[in-house]
This record gives sequence, structure tokens and C-alpha cells, in this order.
Amino acid sequence: MRTIEWKDGTVITVDQTKLPGEMSFLKMKDCRQVASAIKNMRIRGAPLIGVAAAYGLALTAHHSKAVEKRELMKRIEQSAEILRKTRPTAANLFWAVDRVVKRALETLGSAKTVAKAIVDEAQRMADEDVQANRKIGGHGAKLIDDGDTVLTHCNAGRLATVDYGTALGVVRAAWEQGKQIRVIATETRPKLQGARLTAYELKRDGIQVTLITDGMVGYVMSKRLVNKVVVGADRIVQDAVVNKIGTYPIAVLAHEHGVPFYVAAPTSTFDLTHSSRDVIVEERSPEEVTHFCSQRIAPRETKVLNPAFDVTPMKYVTAIICETGVLSPTELKGLATFERA
Amino acid sequence: MRTIEWKDGTVITVDQTKLPGEMSFLKMKDCRQVASAIKNMRIRGAPLIGVAAAYGLALTAHHSKAVEKRELMKRIEQSAEILRKTRPTAANLFWAVDRVVKRALETLGSAKTVAKAIVDEAQRMADEDVQANRKIGGHGAKLIDDGDTVLTHCNAGRLATVDYGTALGVVRAAWEQGKQIRVIATETRPKLQGARLTAYELKRDGIQVTLITDGMVGYVMSKRLVNKVVVGADRIVQDAVVNKIGTYPIAVLAHEHGVPFYVAAPTSTFDLTHSSRDVIVEERSPEEVTHFCSQRIAPRETKVLNPAFDVTPMKYVTAIICETGVLSPTELKGLATFERA
Repeated sequence: MRTIEWKDGTVITVDQTKLPGEMSFLKMKDCRQVASAIKNMRIRGAPLIGVAAAYGLALTAHHSKAVEKRELMKRIEQSAEILRKTRPTAANLFWAVDRVVKRALETLGSAKTVAKAIVDEAQRMADEDVQANRKIGGHGAKLIDDGDTVLTHCNAGRLATVDYGTALGVVRAAWEQGKQIRVIATETRPKLQGARLTAYELKRDGIQVTLITDGMVGYVMSKRLVNKVVVGADRIVQDAVVNKIGTYPIAVLAHEHGVPFYVAAPTSTFDLTHSSRDVIVEERSPEEVTHFCSQRIAPRETKVLNPAFDVTPMKYVTAIICETGVLSPTELKGLATFERA
Repeated sequence: MRTIEWKDGTVITVDQTKLPGEMSFLKMKDCRQVASAIKNMRIRGAPLIGVAAAYGLALTAHHSKAVEKRELMKRIEQSAEILRKTRPTAANLFWAVDRVVKRALETLGSAKTVAKAIVDEAQRMADEDVQANRKIGGHGAKLIDDGDTVLTHCNAGRLATVDYGTALGVVRAAWEQGKQIRVIATETRPKLQGARLTAYELKRDGIQVTLITDGMVGYVMSKRLVNKVVVGADRIVQDAVVNKIGTYPIAVLAHEHGVPFYVAAPTSTFDLTHSSRDVIVEERSPEEVTHFCSQRIAPRETKVLNPAFDVTPMKYVTAIICETGVLSPTELKGLATFERA
């Protein structure tokens, strides 16, 4: 099944905090539940967050008793605000909310008609996400050679998207083409998406994966155990890629060792009217660092930093793989100039 | 008290696997117990491992019922072999075992006389370690400016030595001189020595410490939150510093950001007749990576890498702070040539 699905006015999704121990599902009936799941990272991964937000608005629309469009739009705007406040960094969240609201505004007719348009739009966005990931996989697979070992960080896989994945979509597509590839996955502290989700996904698909801690990236590069790096992105601005904390060190090490560093993300992650100066990096709860599986690992009252993302300047990025093709940072800069014009 | 002490034929040391939750002590009566504590990392930190090994031989000597020296030396050689097999990377272990054995061989007289010489030598090595760390602190403190934030990795503190610490000795000495400094400590997966030990030590001393995960080093450097890096070492060869896994990425990032990268270690860590090609990096149990606080975090049968150390080429090292002063990598190379000659 898909990571997220709409079924008769209910949104069903995998509770990602329970994996790999347990495959359990969240059944959500209203937008606040979706917002809360995004905030608590039961739903995570930039593309999935986008589609989940769209589905959240679909829940508001579907269950609304509004008769007039104006009344419905008031509810939709309230839900949109709740969603926008969940997590500040992933571009897809804002892109998705804006797209659904725009679609609603443009739809003429009764609240019922508009509500249907909203649900349809959310469904379309889910379908488009899968299609985009397949295309990303197709473009990206050309960059992967038979026998390659690909290092990836965090989880930019099926579980970060509606299906197939972005960075892991590239891995999957290469694998489906018969290329014998292996993956090295970083565990990705503090939330361990690499250990919990990437290792899980790849093992299920029969793709050979080796888990390392985040501090082992230098070791595997210096031992020449990695041929390519492929990661996802939470926001791509003119001059940088914003992705899960720990991405930037990998990019610098890849650069130092001459290992290509690819970013795989749909264009819904692009925010080319902004630069890295404009990016707000979400700071999450200190307990994510001081605790591990709800066990305290640091002394009481230890001060921590817990930025959820870091910023990788384009200088370290070999190329960006999106559904329209493979873009060099220079080509991306061209697009940015075009968007500003 | 010191991290390790000799008391009437017993070696008492802090059980480092229990911190920060519990300060409990190991009381060891024979060398096998010491070897096992080193292997299980109840005793860890290169300088402390060295002194613990010396004390292990002291236990064998002290409790031996041998009358003749030859008989005692057989037991000592057996114990030495057990100790040498505990962990392959830390230079101090081999240095300490060799030094005690040499001292025993050079001592003339009965088994009792030799046993006393062995115990005295181990005691002397413990005292010298504290003196060396104080000197390292004095030399290193000159490199630290008032207001600096020092990033450190793993634990090269009081708990990694008999007392005072190497990297944290530098921090302590600067602090004792009245310099207002702060520390950023990486948690240091898989064994979390940064979260468990460094944060604990510094908080007890009233030195302000901020904990981060290993993947956050790029973030704190790019935000210019770090002025200096000071780490310890497990082995310093002609062309590289071998230290806890995750050190090399920090060195590369420091280099990229123009942040000085200092290594603080006593000369007992030097192994200048060898180069990085000769270094054996210990590979530890996969469970350290797949589990966290004995809770499984990765799917069953996930393949892992678990090198305990990585190798930082001298190109990334600003200077080495040892008890004799501050050495540039070039000066160290001079020493290496001298040792080979």
C-alpha cells in the first residue's frame, strides 16, 4: 500500500515512530490530527508532509457542514494556518497548503462542489507524488553504475513520500534495472530515520544495506567504500539545499573525497525565490538529544542544540535530480533567475 | 578521587558504562578482571587504558605466590598477553604493558622485589599521567582565548585519564586561568561518551557545556558557534591521528571553516615508528549500532559497520598538544625521522 491513503473521509497513514518494531496505522478524521502527526513526526519526509497537509485540508472540506463556499473557505483557512505552524522548514508543506487553497478559491459553486474539488486536488497531489518519484528514479538511475555503493542519509524513501521515494527511488530504479548496488545508510540521530526506516525499507525490497552511525561517514569515504551519495531535501533554495541535520558534513566529506553528491527531490521542494539567508531551521525539543528511546543519556539539565536541518551550499552539490531531469546547480540558478523575473 | 586507584592489592575504578545515571566503582583483584573491563569499555580512554593495564600487571605481581623471579615473569608475560589482546588501537595500552615488563626484567632480585618494582612502576605511571595532563593543560590553555567556544568529541577528560584529562585538561586549565569558555560536546555514537561522560564531567566543574549529536557539527561550524576544536587521541602515528570514530569528519569540517583543530595527548600515545597504513582499527560488536540502551533500533539482521576509530591525516591537524609542548605536524614528522634513525 501507499504510505498515505484517503478512504471514505479518513486518512490512513503509517505511524513512523513505531517502525521498525511495529507496523501500525494512524486513522485520522480531522485536520488537527494530521497537524499533530506532522508535528510529532508520526508523519515525516518533506514530500509526504506536503501530501498529508493536502489531505488534512481535504478532511476539513469533506466533513464540513458548510453550505456556502465562503463558510467553507473560513474553515479551510483555519486548517491551513494550523498546518503551516507545524514545521517551518519543509517547502512542500507550504507548497501543498497554498496549492489546495488556491484550487478551492478558483473553484466556483457551492461548499459541496468546492469540498469535492479540494479532495480531488489532494488525491491528485498524492498521485503526482508517486509519478514524480518514479521519474526522479528514472533520471537518477542513469547516474548510478552497476556495482556502486550509494550512501544515503535519513530516510528519503517510500516512507518519506506517498510511494517509491526520492533518494531511495533512485536506488530502487537502478536496482529494478538490474544494477547490483548496495546502500550505506547513516542512522541519523536524533530521530534515527536511517536505522529505523531506511534499513527497514531496503531490507524489505531485498536491497543490501549496511547501517553506520553518523560519525562513520568519514571512515567509509576514506576507505573508498562509497561511490555516490544520494540524499533527499526538505527545501531547495537558490544557493543551497536544506535537508536533515547531518547532510552538510556528508556533502563536505564527499567533496573532499571526490564522491558525487546528488540531491533527489520533486520540484515541490524548490523554493527558488529565496536563498539560504531566508531559511528558518526548525529547532526541536531538547529531549530528542538528551534521551534515547525515552531513556536519559545525558545528565539532567544538560543544555542542547537540536536543529532539525542543516544547509548545504550548492558548491558541494553535484546535481539535483527532480522529476523534470537532472539539474546542475548552475542550471538551478538559471531557473531561480527565471522565477524572480 | 582519581578515576583509577591502587589500594592494598585492589584496583578501584569508576564503572564508566553506568554514568551519568550512577557513580559505581569496580574493585578488581586480578588482571583478567582489568582486561575484561577494558574490553567492555567499563574502563576506556587511551591514557586510562594504559594505566589500568599497568595496574593489571601490578595485581598479578602483588598477588603472585612466586618465589623466584623467573616464575613471576611467566605470570607477568601471561597477563601481558591477555591485556595486549583486549583492544588493538590505543597506543598507550602497548606502551604501558611494555614499560612494566621492561621494568620487571631490569629489576634484579627475588620475585617479591620484582613484584614491588612492578607495583611501584604502575603507581609512578598513574602519577605521571596526572602530571602530563596538567602540563598538556598548561601548554594548551595558551591556545584558548577568553570567550572561546571549544568543540570536543568523545571524552578525553578526567574519566579518560587518571585525572584532569587531555582535551578537557586544556579546557580546564583555560577555565582555571579565568578564561570564560564554553564547550560544545558531540554525543559520540555509538557509545555516547560525549553525552554520558563529557557533559557529566564539565557540568560537575561548572563549565558550560552544550550537547549536540554527531551530525550537528557542520551546523555549529557554519553558524560560527565554534572557535577551536580540541580532541584527544588513541594513537598518533607519523602522518595521522587515530581517535574515536567521528573525529575525522570534524577535522575536515574545521579545515573547511578555518577553525583550528588541536589534538591533546601525552607522548605515551605517540607511535612515530608507524604510519597510518599500519594502524589496525578495532571493529566492535554490531549490537552497539543496532541497539541503543539495549533497545533495538534497526530491523533484525541488519548488517552494520562498527569501526571504533577513524584516521585523521595530519593535513587537517593544526597542532598536537603534549606534555612537552605544542608540536606542529611538521615538528612531529621531525621527531618521527629522529625515532626511526
